[in-house]
Amino acid sequence: MADAKFLSDIEIAQKNVMTHIKDIASKLSIDEDDIEMYGKYKAKLPLTLIDQSKIKKSNLILVTALTPTPAGEGKTTTSIGLTEGLNKIGKKATVVLREPSLGPVFGIKGGAAGGGYAQVVPMEDINLHFTGDFSAIEKANNLLSALIDNNIQNKTNNLGIDPRTIVWKRVMDMNDRSLRDITIGLGGTANGIPREDGFNITPASEVMAILCMAQSFKDLKEKLGNIFIGFTFDRTPIYARDLKAENAMAILLKDAIKPNLVQTLEGNPAIIHGGPFANIAQGTNTILATKMGLSISDYVVTEAGFGADLGAEKFLNIKCVSGNLKPKALVLVATIRALRHHGGASKEQYNDPNTERVSAGFANLEKHIENCKKFGLNPVVAINAFPSDSDDEIQLIQQKCAKMNVKAVLAKGFANGGEGMTDLAEAVVSEIEGGKNKFTPLYNWNLSIKEKIERIAKEIYGADGVDYSKQAIQDLRKIDTLGLQGLPVCMAKTQKSFSDNESLLARPTGFRINVREFEFATGAGFVIPILGKMMRMPGLPVIPASEHMFIDDNGKISGLS
Amino acid sequence: MADAKFLSDIEIAQKNVMTHIKDIASKLSIDEDDIEMYGKYKAKLPLTLIDQSKIKKSNLILVTALTPTPAGEGKTTTSIGLTEGLNKIGKKATVVLREPSLGPVFGIKGGAAGGGYAQVVPMEDINLHFTGDFSAIEKANNLLSALIDNNIQNKTNNLGIDPRTIVWKRVMDMNDRSLRDITIGLGGTANGIPREDGFNITPASEVMAILCMAQSFKDLKEKLGNIFIGFTFDRTPIYARDLKAENAMAILLKDAIKPNLVQTLEGNPAIIHGGPFANIAQGTNTILATKMGLSISDYVVTEAGFGADLGAEKFLNIKCVSGNLKPKALVLVATIRALRHHGGASKEQYNDPNTERVSAGFANLEKHIENCKKFGLNPVVAINAFPSDSDDEIQLIQQKCAKMNVKAVLAKGFANGGEGMTDLAEAVVSEIEGGKNKFTPLYNWNLSIKEKIERIAKEIYGADGVDYSKQAIQDLRKIDTLGLQGLPVCMAKTQKSFSDNESLLARPTGFRINVREFEFATGAGFVIPILGKMMRMPGLPVIPASEHMFIDDNGKISGLS
Repeated sequence: MADAKFLSDIEIAQKNVMTHIKDIASKLSIDEDDIEMYGKYKAKLPLTLIDQSKIKKSNLILVTALTPTPAGEGKTTTSIGLTEGLNKIGKKATVVLREPSLGPVFGIKGGAAGGGYAQVVPMEDINLHFTGDFSAIEKANNLLSALIDNNIQNKTNNLGIDPRTIVWKRVMDMNDRSLRDITIGLGGTANGIPREDGFNITPASEVMAILCMAQSFKDLKEKLGNIFIGFTFDRTPIYARDLKAENAMAILLKDAIKPNLVQTLEGNPAIIHGGPFANIAQGTNTILATKMGLSISDYVVTEAGFGADLGAEKFLNIKCVSGNLKPKALVLVATIRALRHHGGASKEQYNDPNTERVSAGFANLEKHIENCKKFGLNPVVAINAFPSDSDDEIQLIQQKCAKMNVKAVLAKGFANGGEGMTDLAEAVVSEIEGGKNKFTPLYNWNLSIKEKIERIAKEIYGADGVDYSKQAIQDLRKIDTLGLQGLPVCMAKTQKSFSDNESLLARPTGFRINVREFEFATGAGFVIPILGKMMRMPGLPVIPASEHMFIDDNGKISGLS
Repeated sequence: MADAKFLSDIEIAQKNVMTHIKDIASKLSIDEDDIEMYGKYKAKLPLTLIDQSKIKKSNLILVTALTPTPAGEGKTTTSIGLTEGLNKIGKKATVVLREPSLGPVFGIKGGAAGGGYAQVVPMEDINLHFTGDFSAIEKANNLLSALIDNNIQNKTNNLGIDPRTIVWKRVMDMNDRSLRDITIGLGGTANGIPREDGFNITPASEVMAILCMAQSFKDLKEKLGNIFIGFTFDRTPIYARDLKAENAMAILLKDAIKPNLVQTLEGNPAIIHGGPFANIAQGTNTILATKMGLSISDYVVTEAGFGADLGAEKFLNIKCVSGNLKPKALVLVATIRALRHHGGASKEQYNDPNTERVSAGFANLEKHIENCKKFGLNPVVAINAFPSDSDDEIQLIQQKCAKMNVKAVLAKGFANGGEGMTDLAEAVVSEIEGGKNKFTPLYNWNLSIKEKIERIAKEIYGADGVDYSKQAIQDLRKIDTLGLQGLPVCMAKTQKSFSDNESLLARPTGFRINVREFEFATGAGFVIPILGKMMRMPGLPVIPASEHMFIDDNGKISGLS
């Protein structure tokens, strides 16, 4: 399968012969009548298939990563490949992933359906509108916006919302920088009350975070009602329920709440559902999708955004606690390239073998391994293989990991699909069957917000302590007033460093972190300490990806990545 | 079935037992493998099912109406009911309709899937996201917007577009008046170039008009490339193709171009596809959906927005000429209520029987009948029955119609479904089998824009002539420069009167119409003379419909209309 080097992801995906989705369902003992097909290769799964007794017996595997380079280290590719590998060694495994956002498909990032011979298909559909979940989330978000501005506009039914306090923004799943900062309601009395506003990209919507945190349809509706909008002129907090918005919003999400079934290139089941930001939100698929996966197979491979300091921490402390999920194994994805980067290589030197740099860069991986153990989980390191990796570098990593009692396994899913992932699959299964992993969250939600942040900063980031800006101290008082002390914290920090300073690579020490301000997602149920400037609406590059896309008269696409 | 009075539309729809969509397809001799199911009750039909030889043999029936009251006279309900009636008398008939817009569902208007016992189902899905077509159109529209603003922002690749000349607006399928008039690109150099902009509701997007005019996927792409955006600083016109946007936009529309199959309450086929505005656009479903209907059944019932002076005129002169479609029959929907209105009844008097008013109001229907005959089509009048209609009033209409050699038939689809529509079905079939209808367009596209407008104004509206504002005269020069004289005209006029003055009811005479300005849809392929202020983004009412909506824990919806 050496042609992975020569074929683009979309070419590999298009050469693949897909299995009808009813046959994928059938392999999972799901009746054709129980799924809602969206064409021949996508289906929605009803929530009634979630089965608590099966969840308990199944094995949840989290795929996370070391501190990444800007290109990412291949968590999705590794998750898909590991699932192929598990099935290859005779285990019934399903991969459960986030849905890609449409906007970045036309920007720099491109889609997010894996790569090479470790992809989920139909790749084009997954990267485009898929089953309409993002669009439904967008509509629910923007209905609430329209209801807010309509309430301000009309004299009767008016709640007295102070337009200057509104924190709820509109969203659009498009890389559109011109919508970041806008003025709405212009043009006279018929067109609303003028005020500042802006659009975020759809994955940054709290509705997305809510959908991913919801335990049931009932819970979804309640969470939607709990969304904080702003204050009245006399400082009363206003929630979505005050606008009687939660039923209409839930109506718009009646199908979006159902997890989506697709397949991997090797015809194994993939559930793809929800895709919240990994900085201002939890960065992992819906709780319902994870539970669905656990209900229909013996092994579930899932992932969380960015490095383990962000993705795994939130996955374990927020999602697992909230959803009562107990991961049995943890895979830490590393690339030799990223280790060189942490060892001081410049971007131009990423592909140059250099054991000294890799050895120095290992400090980053070492800290992540230590962190995983703090959750009671001994990780397996997956070295996502690149052609430029040298044997010396790989052996070095394996030796250093072995000293920490951790297996480091070469993962060749990109080039070889499941065949290249059986070693990793065996290592993961052996870790689970060893039975030593006992998941424990890092903190108790009952701690104060400040205590929770301190815990994460010291234990996970390795910081000496936490400083708070004046704004953050004010915000903490607001959090108190609104009664949000018991919520978990969803850290919004750069993914490029353990610290909040993106230039500190490897394993920084002797630093403090700075909480600049807080946001809170009262619907989703977490408080967000903001440690830096967070991008919520990307832009397009000078030459947008759209310029190189092509679709022929029969609907065959090229140039999508 | 007297409970139609007591049950809401959604209650009737929910009590109905739907047939699996594969069985609906099977009745049409379409193989299950050839459709793309979206759940059990919706499917997309591939364009390969369109068959020119079958189209020629099938019978196209256009349902239009007299000049309506603000509530509308029930064209959709009549179209669906007539289809049930035709099937009841043994004819294979399909109804082909527009897709409802989501925004108005939360506003005053509500959904648009028929009413009473003449509905298409699943009503909730059709009125909500359906198969995602509107969302895809929205994304294609807004990708072009993002590409425009990105091009203005960046120095390299810059086309020199003058931001003040940009006519392309963003869209959102939401009633959101605060987005009508906005300023974008604020907040510093990273956030784009500040300029005035605004959002229209999605049905007002030219992408919607294009999808509805497209003859094939190839044609769609070409039309998308032809969208006019604005001028450069040196007055060169800029089109979407100059931004290399048409492929990416077409990729976003790859599924949206396929017509959607659903069913009527009585299990007959319904194709629902596309929904452009009836004022600034053509107000009728896609050409491809109409051709699909004609390819799979012997009779196709379809409709066009507003009264016959707008909907039928555009349907016949733009859509039929462009798509080479030849309607065999025309149904003019009238209500006694609307005739009372044209005869001088106030809104409070709409339900009071009054033969004098109905007799005076008949002037309106009379003019519409005369107009239909100008297209070579002798209409059948469908009196959409209301409980407040008196026998005297009905007989009066029937007698007056008979004098014009036109049958006027009581249509009871709302209360009785197909059973109440067999008389109308018989009358329509007899009109078709009579063979006297010979469709001829009113004008030749080769006439000048002014000649085309004059033709419509005098022949259809009954105006004495046409006046042009200074702006309109300037715009006509622009139309000349851009080489658009050969396009048909898509009149943007009030639907409340034959004239451009909405207070002139019945059959006004001695008036002239005023063209204030022109717009042009170079992608869709028509020039739009604007005769009044056109609403392109509705608002929500003081108490939005969303406040009364409810969805239970099992996903059952109430309060949707």
